[in-house]
Amino acid sequence: MQKFKVTFLPDNLTIITEKDKTILSAAISAGIYINSTCGGDGICGKCKVVVSKGDVISQPNGIITASERKNNVYLACLASIQGDLEVVIPDSSRLNFDKLTPEELAERLSGLYSKAEDIRPQKAKFEDKVFKHSPFATKLYLELPEPTLSDSISDLERLYRALRKFEEFPVIQTGLFNIRQLGRLLRDYEWKVTVTLGKRNNTVEIVLIEPGDTSQKNFGLCFDIGTTTISGQLVNLNSKKILGTKAAYNQQAAFGSDVITRILHAAKTEGLKQLHNAVSDTMNQIIKELILEHNVDLNNVNCIVCSGNTTMIHLLLNMDPAHIRKEPYVATANFLPVIRAAEAEININSRGLLSCVPGVSSYVGGDTTAGVLSSGIYQKDVPCILIDIGTNGEIVFGNKDFLVACAASAGPAFEGSGVTSGMRASSGAIQKVSINKGDFSVKYSTIADKKPRGICGSGYIDLLSEMLEAGIIDKSGKIKVGGSRIRQSDSGREFVVCFKEEAGGNRDIVINESDIENLKRSKGAIYSAASILVKHLGLDFSVIHKFYIAGGFGTYLDVDKAIKIGLLPDLERSKFVFIGNSSLAGAREILLSAQAMDMAEKLVSKITYFELSVDPGYMEEYSQALFFPHTDLTKFPTVKFNG
Amino acid sequence: MQKFKVTFLPDNLTIITEKDKTILSAAISAGIYINSTCGGDGICGKCKVVVSKGDVISQPNGIITASERKNNVYLACLASIQGDLEVVIPDSSRLNFDKLTPEELAERLSGLYSKAEDIRPQKAKFEDKVFKHSPFATKLYLELPEPTLSDSISDLERLYRALRKFEEFPVIQTGLFNIRQLGRLLRDYEWKVTVTLGKRNNTVEIVLIEPGDTSQKNFGLCFDIGTTTISGQLVNLNSKKILGTKAAYNQQAAFGSDVITRILHAAKTEGLKQLHNAVSDTMNQIIKELILEHNVDLNNVNCIVCSGNTTMIHLLLNMDPAHIRKEPYVATANFLPVIRAAEAEININSRGLLSCVPGVSSYVGGDTTAGVLSSGIYQKDVPCILIDIGTNGEIVFGNKDFLVACAASAGPAFEGSGVTSGMRASSGAIQKVSINKGDFSVKYSTIADKKPRGICGSGYIDLLSEMLEAGIIDKSGKIKVGGSRIRQSDSGREFVVCFKEEAGGNRDIVINESDIENLKRSKGAIYSAASILVKHLGLDFSVIHKFYIAGGFGTYLDVDKAIKIGLLPDLERSKFVFIGNSSLAGAREILLSAQAMDMAEKLVSKITYFELSVDPGYMEEYSQALFFPHTDLTKFPTVKFNG
Repeated sequence: MQKFKVTFLPDNLTIITEKDKTILSAAISAGIYINSTCGGDGICGKCKVVVSKGDVISQPNGIITASERKNNVYLACLASIQGDLEVVIPDSSRLNFDKLTPEELAERLSGLYSKAEDIRPQKAKFEDKVFKHSPFATKLYLELPEPTLSDSISDLERLYRALRKFEEFPVIQTGLFNIRQLGRLLRDYEWKVTVTLGKRNNTVEIVLIEPGDTSQKNFGLCFDIGTTTISGQLVNLNSKKILGTKAAYNQQAAFGSDVITRILHAAKTEGLKQLHNAVSDTMNQIIKELILEHNVDLNNVNCIVCSGNTTMIHLLLNMDPAHIRKEPYVATANFLPVIRAAEAEININSRGLLSCVPGVSSYVGGDTTAGVLSSGIYQKDVPCILIDIGTNGEIVFGNKDFLVACAASAGPAFEGSGVTSGMRASSGAIQKVSINKGDFSVKYSTIADKKPRGICGSGYIDLLSEMLEAGIIDKSGKIKVGGSRIRQSDSGREFVVCFKEEAGGNRDIVINESDIENLKRSKGAIYSAASILVKHLGLDFSVIHKFYIAGGFGTYLDVDKAIKIGLLPDLERSKFVFIGNSSLAGAREILLSAQAMDMAEKLVSKITYFELSVDPGYMEEYSQALFFPHTDLTKFPTVKFNG
Repeated sequence: MQKFKVTFLPDNLTIITEKDKTILSAAISAGIYINSTCGGDGICGKCKVVVSKGDVISQPNGIITASERKNNVYLACLASIQGDLEVVIPDSSRLNFDKLTPEELAERLSGLYSKAEDIRPQKAKFEDKVFKHSPFATKLYLELPEPTLSDSISDLERLYRALRKFEEFPVIQTGLFNIRQLGRLLRDYEWKVTVTLGKRNNTVEIVLIEPGDTSQKNFGLCFDIGTTTISGQLVNLNSKKILGTKAAYNQQAAFGSDVITRILHAAKTEGLKQLHNAVSDTMNQIIKELILEHNVDLNNVNCIVCSGNTTMIHLLLNMDPAHIRKEPYVATANFLPVIRAAEAEININSRGLLSCVPGVSSYVGGDTTAGVLSSGIYQKDVPCILIDIGTNGEIVFGNKDFLVACAASAGPAFEGSGVTSGMRASSGAIQKVSINKGDFSVKYSTIADKKPRGICGSGYIDLLSEMLEAGIIDKSGKIKVGGSRIRQSDSGREFVVCFKEEAGGNRDIVINESDIENLKRSKGAIYSAASILVKHLGLDFSVIHKFYIAGGFGTYLDVDKAIKIGLLPDLERSKFVFIGNSSLAGAREILLSAQAMDMAEKLVSKITYFELSVDPGYMEEYSQALFFPHTDLTKFPTVKFNG
């Protein structure tokens, strides 16, 4: 096999690779993650690179323009390496080019946003449930009595005897690793040791035995592993204090933006391993930053609780997710045993434990269980809805008596994927829009007040709502003729939100009819799923007392506008509660309390999974939702507009 | 470091080794185990080799005779390598030069021997206790219903659901290894699989999931890991049938004959590892032979139960035994968790489980627990004694109401070690002796009727008894003058049992006053330990209803003669019951029944360890036992002799 050198710029990273490999796969080998929403199929156009030196061959595609071709721009996924190369990867094609600022992050995680004081959504309070503090890992400092001829039980039994003075553990497990060093450790350190106990599948394991008193150094992590964003928190397990929070983009996005693309990628040679490495790399990077920032020794991080959708958890544990996407949509496991974090290549203490929040089904995962747990809807007397808006929109309806869940494949449009000028909710994303009804001029604000680079989910909601209001689109989403901002494109008519001169980029920021179609399908999927779920129980939205909205998406959401386009039902605005990252919050509760873990397990068996596709009314409901806001306007009595 | 080539003959095995290493350590590196009772201290004289080519230097020692020196005979442990060598290792210096014949083995394992029909000891019967058949590993064949949209629980939960139809397991544990392959396995084999369940510390673990129905192929092993001999059995776990039994010498003998020497060796660089390798090598060899002979696939051997003294178990698990020999004699662990056999480098199915029978204390190990279990003395209404005669003589006294145990450091004399013409009970060992009172001529029989090579334990008992009877020695063990077979030696007077011309060897087979002193101390230690143990409870031997004798040693034991020299107390002969390898039998019961394992754990807490050395009367009792049979002849009313 012929081998070539490929140098990536501006990183100045060189690797040796084989002839005919794509630049995308060479970049991944070099540890550089390139955006690839379509998973390397040459469709999304996110992976553009400049080949500044050397030869590649590439299939023709409709994405690279003539001028780009002249400037040696290629799609990394289609460009096959034919010699030594020098490749420039522009920021816009990188996955990790812009981390969230601390402010963005704080906002995202606190989950509080409102456009004005009068409709400020109520802050979620979980006062009802208080779980007893009993963390996943506990440290106990022991001063053992020295053995004598009349008290000569073995070292291990001496340790157990001391532990049982704290609590009557029914089963204590200890591995050979700890036993082998026990004799010397006890004697070298005058019988004073700290034992780390971990909860492991209804037994207690001695995870670690350390010399002296280290009981004050007991830390844990909780993670929400989203398809797009991974968030982690470092927690002091003794004080329950959150020391810090970090988020980063899930590097798996290099292999596709949604779970289906990733499942398909996992079936390729090395695909599963690549996806596993991408998620563990992302998590390890977050962990590294957290412990450095908070001056915590990695050896004192003893456990980690992970919450994520079923596919994410499969990939984290290097489990084949193939059957999740094939009818009847079966996961390998929804309840995972507690394992060593090292088995999933997550770097904490080498003997530290990792637990995954149990999931309900292939499309209602542990992130939903964690959301139900942290939102507390399972304790309410009155019916509530929890909706986690992401690429997979999970919806739970119920209260203390019943819980029904379904998954709406909303698609990635509200996460800025699959839409012409879409981007994730990060610096430079247009997040709020208003349109002048006279001249259609646009005012917008961007995240971090940077020059606009694209439009994120909440920006699209504002934009659609304003376009409806201004009469630029009709209820079906068709763009009407007229004005300097409206023109024909390959994807139907398009409306220019921001000209390139203003943005300082290469392209106008636009929305076209094909984008609108995508967004309409996304909002229609979520609305109709929630609607069918409620109907399935013979009820309608009017019975809902609280409507909990979770997810990073919820952060910038304008409720009025979301109702106006028919994403959310037309209920009293005070019923909507933004609860931010409920998956992460649930994982943290489990990290800090065995009772919360018990409750999560109970919730899983209490939540009934409802497969939307088997409901005969679903397609009709969905079709009706493919209008702004809906074909049946009586369902949206407060929505008025000029269109 | 200068390196040399050493070739061992007749093996024709060559290794590269460093200058100044001993031939003994070079041989061990080459995988050749040389006898070394003293553990390489140049004392026992068991490791003689012939250096046929090349240079060595050796310290002077009193063992190599002038003629041996002329023939280039060296002690392997003292000979330091100074150049390329060719070394001949004679059979007599090898540890594994003579395996037990099937007949010897059968006899050793059945534990039945008597000199005449009229005093045939009663065969042990365990009719009292019948443990429910519930082996350490169980195989269940499952035909799972295929998932449908209305029954889409995960693969793992589907498996659990099916398992729980057999039994309500409270906790089932499964490792990622099995989970990762589950999805494909179930689908590739039409949802028909065999699950191997293992009992692991009060939980149930899915050890293995195999395609199709392999439930009939479920095998296990039990082992008795003795200081000198290791015995293993291959058992069909479904039918409870013993398929075969093998024994081999513990290759650890290359590092010393008793546990103390081995503990000292373990403290040396690489010492623990060498001892661990020696025991695992021996066991793996036995396993290999068993499975080949009985046509069993190693992958179908799912579990193993090991019984052994506390030091042997530490070495098997690569645990430092250092503190066992230092006051207050503390083991690292007497209760060991169930581990994978692979963690102890024992070759069965790579995920197979290994359990060690729990021990009571550093000197009353799992072999004693297993002996109490299989002898059934813990169920008796009347007081009984169990005595396992080996290098460490363990003694248990009690019945269903109480159990007290102690350990007598009998030393290796009765195993043929530390005595001039001593050898283990294998081919060519003199095992029975009678002496003509007139001319002191000796008649003897050897094991397997081979030419005599030395004297084993039962031979020494006969010999001492006959020498007393013939008046060759007095009660203190002094040899009287007279006759052509009695002469002076460096170790006091000696009696020639067999002249070298008759034996066809290089040396006369003799017993000298120093040997007699050693044997006297051994028998005195055992007798006085048993006596003190009974006295400790305010009783005497007359209360004993049954006297169980266990161990390989017991196989050839002549009760009358053993009483005559004062090794066993002078009780009615029918009270003595030989139970053979009670340690192996107990391990097998545990292998076949979880109830037996529960009982073993209960027994451990029921057995009170009695440390002989703290009893103020022990030294006096021991001194009194240093006569044949005893200073107090009223204790041996049936013993009469001419001396």
